[in-house]
Parts: sequence; C-alpha cells; structure tokens
Amino acid sequence: MLRAQVLGSPAEDNALWVTADTGQGQTRLLLDCGARTLDALPLAEVRAVDHVLFSHLHMDHVAGFDDLFRAVFDRPGRQNHVWGPPGTARILAHRFRGYWWNHAPELSGTWHVHDVDGREVRSFRFELHEAFEVAHEEDTRPVGGPLFTTPEVSVEAVPLRHQGVCLGYVVREPERVSVDASQLAALGLKGGPWLAALKAGATGTLDVGGTAYDADDLRARLLRRESGDSLAYLTDFRLDADEQARLAPLLTGVETLYAEAQYLPEDTDLARRNDHTTAAQVAALARAAGVGDLCLLHLSRRYRAQRWPEFLSAARAVFPRTHFPAGWPGGETG
Amino acid sequence: MLRAQVLGSPAEDNALWVTADTGQGQTRLLLDCGARTLDALPLAEVRAVDHVLFSHLHMDHVAGFDDLFRAVFDRPGRQNHVWGPPGTARILAHRFRGYWWNHAPELSGTWHVHDVDGREVRSFRFELHEAFEVAHEEDTRPVGGPLFTTPEVSVEAVPLRHQGVCLGYVVREPERVSVDASQLAALGLKGGPWLAALKAGATGTLDVGGTAYDADDLRARLLRRESGDSLAYLTDFRLDADEQARLAPLLTGVETLYAEAQYLPEDTDLARRNDHTTAAQVAALARAAGVGDLCLLHLSRRYRAQRWPEFLSAARAVFPRTHFPAGWPGGETG
Repeated sequence: MLRAQVLGSPAEDNALWVTADTGQGQTRLLLDCGARTLDALPLAEVRAVDHVLFSHLHMDHVAGFDDLFRAVFDRPGRQNHVWGPPGTARILAHRFRGYWWNHAPELSGTWHVHDVDGREVRSFRFELHEAFEVAHEEDTRPVGGPLFTTPEVSVEAVPLRHQGVCLGYVVREPERVSVDASQLAALGLKGGPWLAALKAGATGTLDVGGTAYDADDLRARLLRRESGDSLAYLTDFRLDADEQARLAPLLTGVETLYAEAQYLPEDTDLARRNDHTTAAQVAALARAAGVGDLCLLHLSRRYRAQRWPEFLSAARAVFPRTHFPAGWPGGETG
Repeated sequence: MLRAQVLGSPAEDNALWVTADTGQGQTRLLLDCGARTLDALPLAEVRAVDHVLFSHLHMDHVAGFDDLFRAVFDRPGRQNHVWGPPGTARILAHRFRGYWWNHAPELSGTWHVHDVDGREVRSFRFELHEAFEVAHEEDTRPVGGPLFTTPEVSVEAVPLRHQGVCLGYVVREPERVSVDASQLAALGLKGGPWLAALKAGATGTLDVGGTAYDADDLRARLLRRESGDSLAYLTDFRLDADEQARLAPLLTGVETLYAEAQYLPEDTDLARRNDHTTAAQVAALARAAGVGDLCLLHLSRRYRAQRWPEFLSAARAVFPRTHFPAGWPGGETG
C-alpha cells in the first residue's frame, strides 16, 4: 500500500511524504522539502528516506534541505538519491558544500543526484569523504518509463512548465498478484513452492503433488491480478488547455492527485503570468484524467485563512472528490 | 545599552542576538545561526539584522542560515554583512547559490562577506541580480582594532582554536558622554548647541550666551565619561593554560561573557580532544579576565537534562556569577 502525508500547512511550504509498504519492505519518498516540512515526521522516519524528488529548486521547495541533510548526510550503509529537473546536481552540490567540512576525510556518505529532463537522466555522484568537492559523472541515459523501481514502488517523472522545467511525479505500486483460495480448493490443490514458481512466471508443466499441470492453465485459474495504489504529485506548473491535454493521459489510473492550487479562479490571469494553477484548473485536470480523488496543496499566501474553503468549493464545482490534506482546516480526517 | 538574547535551547543549536540601542538608533547583530535559532525572534527583528557574525561554519552553527537568508536576501535599501573565519566567503557563496535563481536578474540585494583571520580581513561582494555567481573582491585590510564600528557599537574578533581558526567576538558600546547637570547649574550656564560642540571635541574658545569660555576647561568641568555596555561571545574553542593567558587580556572590561560549556569537568580529556571547553575552564577564564558575569551555552547533547545543573555548579565553584540564559531550566529570569 501507499501511505501519503502532506507536510506543512496551507499557505506555508509543503512537501509530500510517501511510504510504499508491501508488508515485506518499504520504500520512503520525500517529494520536495520546504522549510519546516520535516517537523511532522519522527526523526527515525526521516533517517530512513530512500529517494528525494524535487519538483524544482525554488526557495519554498528546498529551504528544509538542511534539516534533511543533517539527518542523513553520513548514514551508514545507505546511499542517498536526489532527483530533480536540470540544474539539480549543480544546486545540490552548492548545498552539500555549504559547511566547513574539516572532518570530511574521516566520514563517509554517498549522494547520487539525478538531473531529469524530458529526454534523459544525467547522474552525478558526490562523496562526503571528498567534502563533496567532485561531481563524479556517473551516466547519462534516456528516460523511458520509470526513473527507478524498487520492490515496493516505481516512480515516473512528468515534465511541467514553470519558468523552465519543473517535474511532477507519478508513484505506482507494482501489480499485486494473489491466489484465489476458492479456486485452489475447487481444484483440490494445496499450496507449496509451485505457487511461487507460478507467480514468478513458470511455463510448461508444473509438478503439483505428483501430478503434472499446465502452468498457463493454472495461472489463468488461480492467480488474480490487481493494480497497486498510485498517486501523482504536481506542483508549480502552468495549466492551460494544451497542458491539460498533454498531462491527463500521463495520469491514467492514478488514484490520488496531489496538486498545487496557488490561486482562486478570480486570479486566473495571475496564475497564467506566474506559471501557476487555479483550484478550478487542477480540478479540470483531475476530471479529464479520471483520477480517483484530488488533494489540494500549496495555496498562495495572498489569501487569508477564511478564504481557504473557497479553494475547495471552486474545485468541487468541477471535480467533487476534492479535499484538503488531513490536518488542514476542513481537511480529510483519518 | 546592549540587549542580548541567547537563542535556542540547551543541548540544541544556539546563537546570540544582540541589539545595541542608544535611543537614537539600533545596531542588530546575530552571532551564529544554528537550526531553529531564529524561531524566538519576531520576523521584523530578523529583517532588521545589520551584521551576521559566524564563529565558524560547522553544521550546528550555520544550519539556520536558510531561515535568515529568506528573510533578508532581497531587502530593499539595506546591505548585508557576514563575518567569519577564513573560508566563510567560499562557504557562503555556496549557500547563496543553493537555489534556482531564474528570477535573479529582476531582484537586487548585496551581500558583503568578510573572511577574518588574526592578521587581515578579506572582503567579497555578492550580488543577487547576478545570482551570486561572482565573488567580487572588495579589499584586503589588516586587522587593527574593531572589525566595524557603528554609532551604537563596535565589534572586535578574537581568533580561537577549534580544529582550525574559529572566531570569538567582543561587542562594546562606545563610551557614553553625559553632561553633569549640577556643574552646569553651578556655572550658571544653560544648555544649547555649544554643548553638542563640546561633546564633539571643540577646542579653543566657545561662545556661551555671549561669554567666551575655554572649551577644554568646560569639558573637564561638565562632561562625564563612562564606558558603555559590553559582552563577549566565545564558542567552540580549546581552552588550556596558554589559551587562557592569551584570551583573558582580550576580555578586559567585558561585562558578560557568553561562552560555550560543552563538557563537564569529568570529560576534560574529551574537551581537549575535540577542541572544546569544560564549564570549569570557561569559569576560570571568566575569573582571570575579571568579567562581570558568565553565561553558559552550547552544552553537549551527551548529557541528559537532569545533569545540566552540574554545569552551573562546576562553573560557580570557580566563578560564582555564572548563570544560564533566560528561559533555560535554572536560567536567569527577567
């Protein structure tokens, strides 16, 4: 399952913390890292982060990085991965070097930073014991499919337009494969290692309790496939008709869309000028993409708290299944 | 007067906020900037900071810089000054560049960063509209006396030893010159512009209500001089007998010494190995320097809260006028 927690408050910096948990393992993702956004998380959780994904490196998305870095810069036995639009490795290199590192030669910690544009991923490695002074070029590879896949989750980048390239992310669990217990009983079979072989894609004949079965036939009768949880995170982007048409298909099958709603519809001109969205625009995208529900975040500071409910009503007029994050005034409960 | 506020909690990052206030004007100083240290200050105060003084750039002294920077990076009509040991300009340049600055050409903000060692000050200028990409060399000048002087205060650097150069700071108000009202009455004189001229150092004869007076004679009779408030801030430094002998004379006349007390006396070996002090060592320095009182800060995280009173008792055994900052458990009140 995917557990997602919006960090930060309305009209303050936000971030999204995602834990993909199969029961056998977890992958933890931090999407953006505004000031104070990590305050809501136990330090042990922060220390277990696997991948940090930046939409872009404007101040309100990166100002909490020192907190993150302090928690994990030298954690033993774990590599660090940071993803973001072109320029991320250059900017992160500055952040890594923003300290007096006289102890660096005695320490170790490896940071991989990946610049992602629409066509390729350029990866750089930085070493704490070198005081992060060298950007080791790792590789450049074309983007095709997910940026990375773990046993728990895969993550794709969605290039957005925000005064340059900004990245959205789509996070999907792998398909879940389960055994239909009633079919198993109907066939008079008992579980065993052959079931794992079947799930792993065995072909030909399978020996089940001394009897030979056709693997493909068994698979069709016994195994049920369902798609895993999924979410998308889109912030700081222009959303006009062309962009909606481009983005909606990329969100196919997404359950929850976490999206910025910087402006109310009355400020659509301002949204266009600043390459941001209105609540109504992201609701229209949610509707066009057919997502399950829409969670609004990253509201502009220009609106006082008493106007926040207007974001919900503007979005719900277009896409009823819109909500604020848990913990926000008027937000989801539980 | 000088108002000083220790920021941060015991065994967390600390900093010192100093306001020098003559009634006619203020100078605001921030000494170090650990994580969350600015939380205790109103944003309007932070925005009015005049000089930032770093002891050194280890993580626990600089991790709050993003908060400061966000408050003042583009403030109109004010220049920014940052002082620290050699390497400060290099490290601050990285911090300035740790953002995506696509808007920089439309913004303005000037940052002067001053590297101070025992002999000279090297100054560099960075411009926001250049996205801080250029370290403009300003000047290199020998250190003789204060680093800077404003109408409200002067600040001297005290080189310390902490795995390299670390800086302490001595902050002194200028002498206060007041008029002895009883002497004025005894001479049968009334105030007027001539008094300002006298304070400003007029010589020869002064016309006072149509009568000529000798300026030097009037000055000796009427003007009283008293030293202003003063404080010193010393953190992260080795303090052995040689260092005490070197540092004590530099603290002459200091009213309050704000000093780190990383360790209890039982951990003197650890203090020596890590170039830190014990509570007893800084108390001995306070006594040797003849300061008015000693305020302990920057306690090591290795001690639990129930042991904090031991810092006070260890120091008071050597120098009774020792206290914790206002707001700390067992700290000063009012």
